[in-house]
Amino acid sequence: MIVVMRSGATPEQTKAVVDKITAMGFGVNVSQGAEKLIIGVLGVRENKETLAAQLGGLPYVERVMPISKPYKLVSREGSQAGTVVRLSNGTEIGANAVHVMAGPCTVEGRDMVIDTARWIKQCGATLLRGGAYKPSTSPYSFQGMGKDGLEILAEARAKTGLPVITEVLDPRDVPVVEEYADILQIGARNMQNFNLLKECGKSRKPVMLKRGLSATIEEWLLAAEYLYAGGNHDVILCERGIRTFEPATRNTLDLNAVPLVKQLTHLPIIVDPSHGTGKWDLVSPMARAGIAAGADGVIIEVHPNPSEALKDGFESLTFDNFAAMMDGLRPIARAVGRPVASDATAPV
Amino acid sequence: MIVVMRSGATPEQTKAVVDKITAMGFGVNVSQGAEKLIIGVLGVRENKETLAAQLGGLPYVERVMPISKPYKLVSREGSQAGTVVRLSNGTEIGANAVHVMAGPCTVEGRDMVIDTARWIKQCGATLLRGGAYKPSTSPYSFQGMGKDGLEILAEARAKTGLPVITEVLDPRDVPVVEEYADILQIGARNMQNFNLLKECGKSRKPVMLKRGLSATIEEWLLAAEYLYAGGNHDVILCERGIRTFEPATRNTLDLNAVPLVKQLTHLPIIVDPSHGTGKWDLVSPMARAGIAAGADGVIIEVHPNPSEALKDGFESLTFDNFAAMMDGLRPIARAVGRPVASDATAPV
Amino acid sequence: MIVVMRSGATPEQTKAVVDKITAMGFGVNVSQGAEKLIIGVLGVRENKETLAAQLGGLPYVERVMPISKPYKLVSREGSQAGTVVRLSNGTEIGANAVHVMAGPCTVEGRDMVIDTARWIKQCGATLLRGGAYKPSTSPYSFQGMGKDGLEILAEARAKTGLPVITEVLDPRDVPVVEEYADILQIGARNMQNFNLLKECGKSRKPVMLKRGLSATIEEWLLAAEYLYAGGNHDVILCERGIRTFEPATRNTLDLNAVPLVKQLTHLPIIVDPSHGTGKWDLVSPMARAGIAAGADGVIIEVHPNPSEALKDGFESLTFDNFAAMMDGLRPIARAVGRPVASDATAPV
Amino acid sequence: MIVVMRSGATPEQTKAVVDKITAMGFGVNVSQGAEKLIIGVLGVRENKETLAAQLGGLPYVERVMPISKPYKLVSREGSQAGTVVRLSNGTEIGANAVHVMAGPCTVEGRDMVIDTARWIKQCGATLLRGGAYKPSTSPYSFQGMGKDGLEILAEARAKTGLPVITEVLDPRDVPVVEEYADILQIGARNMQNFNLLKECGKSRKPVMLKRGLSATIEEWLLAAEYLYAGGNHDVILCERGIRTFEPATRNTLDLNAVPLVKQLTHLPIIVDPSHGTGKWDLVSPMARAGIAAGADGVIIEVHPNPSEALKDGFESLTFDNFAAMMDGLRPIARAVGRPVASDATAPV
Repeated sequence: MIVVMRSGATPEQTKAVVDKITAMGFGVNVSQGAEKLIIGVLGVRENKETLAAQLGGLPYVERVMPISKPYKLVSREGSQAGTVVRLSNGTEIGANAVHVMAGPCTVEGRDMVIDTARWIKQCGATLLRGGAYKPSTSPYSFQGMGKDGLEILAEARAKTGLPVITEVLDPRDVPVVEEYADILQIGARNMQNFNLLKECGKSRKPVMLKRGLSATIEEWLLAAEYLYAGGNHDVILCERGIRTFEPATRNTLDLNAVPLVKQLTHLPIIVDPSHGTGKWDLVSPMARAGIAAGADGVIIEVHPNPSEALKDGFESLTFDNFAAMMDGLRPIARAVGRPVASDATAPV
Repeated sequence: MIVVMRSGATPEQTKAVVDKITAMGFGVNVSQGAEKLIIGVLGVRENKETLAAQLGGLPYVERVMPISKPYKLVSREGSQAGTVVRLSNGTEIGANAVHVMAGPCTVEGRDMVIDTARWIKQCGATLLRGGAYKPSTSPYSFQGMGKDGLEILAEARAKTGLPVITEVLDPRDVPVVEEYADILQIGARNMQNFNLLKECGKSRKPVMLKRGLSATIEEWLLAAEYLYAGGNHDVILCERGIRTFEPATRNTLDLNAVPLVKQLTHLPIIVDPSHGTGKWDLVSPMARAGIAAGADGVIIEVHPNPSEALKDGFESLTFDNFAAMMDGLRPIARAVGRPVASDATAPV
Repeated sequence: MIVVMRSGATPEQTKAVVDKITAMGFGVNVSQGAEKLIIGVLGVRENKETLAAQLGGLPYVERVMPISKPYKLVSREGSQAGTVVRLSNGTEIGANAVHVMAGPCTVEGRDMVIDTARWIKQCGATLLRGGAYKPSTSPYSFQGMGKDGLEILAEARAKTGLPVITEVLDPRDVPVVEEYADILQIGARNMQNFNLLKECGKSRKPVMLKRGLSATIEEWLLAAEYLYAGGNHDVILCERGIRTFEPATRNTLDLNAVPLVKQLTHLPIIVDPSHGTGKWDLVSPMARAGIAAGADGVIIEVHPNPSEALKDGFESLTFDNFAAMMDGLRPIARAVGRPVASDATAPV
Repeated sequence: MIVVMRSGATPEQTKAVVDKITAMGFGVNVSQGAEKLIIGVLGVRENKETLAAQLGGLPYVERVMPISKPYKLVSREGSQAGTVVRLSNGTEIGANAVHVMAGPCTVEGRDMVIDTARWIKQCGATLLRGGAYKPSTSPYSFQGMGKDGLEILAEARAKTGLPVITEVLDPRDVPVVEEYADILQIGARNMQNFNLLKECGKSRKPVMLKRGLSATIEEWLLAAEYLYAGGNHDVILCERGIRTFEPATRNTLDLNAVPLVKQLTHLPIIVDPSHGTGKWDLVSPMARAGIAAGADGVIIEVHPNPSEALKDGFESLTFDNFAAMMDGLRPIARAVGRPVASDATAPV
């Protein structure tokens, strides 16, 4: 941590800062730069963040600049090997093969889920997605089928063998969702719902943590740190688009985040081009781009009939479009030396 | 709602759209523009949002543009008179006088809260703020004193008569927080925590809803609509800064939002220059600007000793700075014809 | 300047960095932090920015963090007294009184300019604005009357005594615009048109520099530094709204910038609520907010008949609305101890 | 164009709007929606944008929503076939093969340019980039070698056969830059320097137009329309990253823009992962992602020794890293059915 004093700070003011730092158990390195006096704070102690907040309260302190990463357990520096999240059916996320998670935005009924699950499996997807508890911007929108939706997902899993990923919105719902789901999803709007993070940290099921609409990568990794510090080490990240000034797409899929996150953390990362673009006709090229950038998989919205969807018709692929997307994705996956998981046992 | 067809849509495709709209009970107005065919959707029905989602799933539909506001109950169009939120001690928020809510970011202990409450009251504040349940970006940061903090706030209220506003983070905590607080605060990170909104909608205590870091004004008013539709009509909005590209301030206080929100909704609005700037030396001018723009009050972080604060030292005012801020605010309030509430009984 | 080495950098790699720094004439301060090794770069030399760029090219360097401000001449640290820009008719911008610059977006003809000039003067404005050279997003939009427009502005000045501020778009146009204008305006889209800055730096006329749509405050002050370093010390800043995710207003007027800029630089600052909001009915409250935040003046679009305007009808005030705005602004100016300039000689 | 009247507009106010529209030669379609009255404006006329501006000036008009795209000549709707830009040496940009443009950020001297040109050609690049006129945020930074730099680029072309792309900053420099360059580059900061666009529109050399830091895709295509309408049909777009709230990368490369631009316009598009990320170790994966998303090529900064670069050391590839990037790019290009241009004559 570096403390920059304001121009014109007196020796007494500087001494007060140094005394405060040393009183809290840290060492100091004082350096008079060309224009500013700089104080380096040395040492590792749990009260470092408190110190930073307090130094900011001194009027002659201009800035306090952290140097170390505030996340520790999920940092690549702490663990060079990449995390591989293993599901009960043997699926490995974060290993060499890339995964395609697919399914409807929302569980709307039994048949549409089972039909979709069968189709995506036939096309090469290896996980089924679908929302039973739905966050809705408007109170007048459909809020999901709840537990009935979870049962439909479980039935689709039984019929196809595809593990299920589904969102949990509320700390109170973690027990029921983890009973049915293979992976708990934390949505973008809940990335900093810290009590939900704490409950999911106690779960024995893996968690996929979506990036918030305006979350920095550091905030996202700190949210992952909540899960990890809470005891759940099976954490998957998901880049799903950030909010920018651009109105032409619903969100801006930030693929810079993919290779950057691979440097900063050992956790796997999935890309969501459906929400990341909000337009079905951009999904396929952006899925390819995500895998080319180094993602461990993609998550795709598919609907038997998008013009009958209860939500997000604009971004859902039809069955035919999903099959075409898979055809375009396989050569990209091979080009980066990583087969699509459903092809991994076949000769590549 | 307006549906814009893609260039080259066939008459059959247009007919399919029209049939879908009429089948769902709406009227249509078809208009061939210079380049695009446009279909107006006429009528008020609850399934309008579903229709919009589904039309988006048709490949020959280019865009679906809403015309009506998606929020109804909080809309100014529904109620020309401004909402006045009345607390049990007679405090009225949204009436002519403007209010100053002040206090520490975090309840750190008994004395600091009571000392602060006494000071801010003496200076003219009319509500006490302070966080007992704290959202923290890092799992290693202080998470608040919880119920003990609520008891300290209640004691400060008993000693000063100031009503208390404090944050609730978790739907499970609503009962305990509403037992102690005069106003429940929903923080920026929870603006779209829909289950928390639903629980607070059932509360009999007023709610102050902060704008999310990257929430559009429409999303913010839809979150308010959740509260209102849930049965709680005592809703106060709070602009606390949005996230932009500018690194020089922690957030960008969006004061455009103040007069705009006054046009769009009948709810009162408070401005938070402490979080909106993140720098204590910008708080006073931005509090003045907020009142000049038409806000119904401000909320200010004050700490007996910011350099001993557990959080947010950079943005907290000292007692002296708070007194100076009040001195600068009063003439501005008078200039817009609205006294600071503590002066309202004195001749103005 | 602080250089942060990557974790795991070897002593040889650190030595290479230190050698490079010292070879370029700087001193060093090496400090082993808890996790990272940090090298402070000491001394003032012109090649500091080149050093920063080059250090970034070394793979074991994680970050290079500047400490000093990159602008010098316009920095408040270099000159505690505020700049006052004096025009030939005695108008002083940056002194105690606040100024209202007003007029049409675009010079559309002789009568509309002269009528507007007379009206705004009668209401208390002290400068006339109007565009003769217009930047237009579309090539098919009106591009301005050019030199004929400048002559109309000069005639309006002759008739009213109001000094004229007008935009210059092209380095080749600086001679003709400075012949007619009292203040040259550099628009938001040209804030980093460096050759235009250089030409205006050579001018003997004051320059008002608008902030770019997505310019950080540091970039804005560096653009001002171009003018200052080029020899033109009569520089006025203008905050006119930044681009954010919010679609409800055309731009987000960043009033945080006003008190912040007052700390960072000695230059005056004007606020433009017309472009900053893009909605005529938000102009008046945001003009009040700008003055309350500490601005040295406002610039306002006024049109005799906004529904006949060639541009920007949405944000122009009618004559009546402008008069009402002035009535609301005066008490705010008095409340911050600064009269509107046209009232300054009258008893306040 | 759709005009939405405010709630409560009177029949007289509506009639005034209708009369204004018809007086300007357009047809109308009036439709009473559930809550709002909507007026469709029918017909194609040059004064449509003026009408939009003027309608905005009427107080009972709530919104004016354009339907047609404001760009015409560059629109895909006007020309289904993709533009292929042909250079004098036969290079075709926008045809099936993808191109790699590479070279130093800045022309720093003769040897470094020629060495770099030889290396990148050997690795498979087909165009040489390098800046002779440099935009610099600070007036104290290197501003480029100017004409001497152009001569060095020309010499490198003579020695390698690689066509040259280089930036032009100032309308006055177009003649000299087009004398030397094969493609004129307009940089991000100049995307809305309309007079520069007009001069380049008159040039007989192709132009590569970078997207502005905060330019919407519509604004970008309107800037391209300036070039096209000015007579220059050899226009190439370049996505180089937009400005967002994320501090971890210098910019956010918006790859959504690639497939979207391919739908909206017939112009080719190049991706710049060097500026789009600002970090050399993200360049290679993002170059792959750009091609996977459908770009017609990439532009890459390469420097013989980034730690001696005068600018942008942080984002320049070494020779070895560039060779490795090419090795990773080729299989991706093949996977999307488009060879890297230098491989196109070899069997693929």
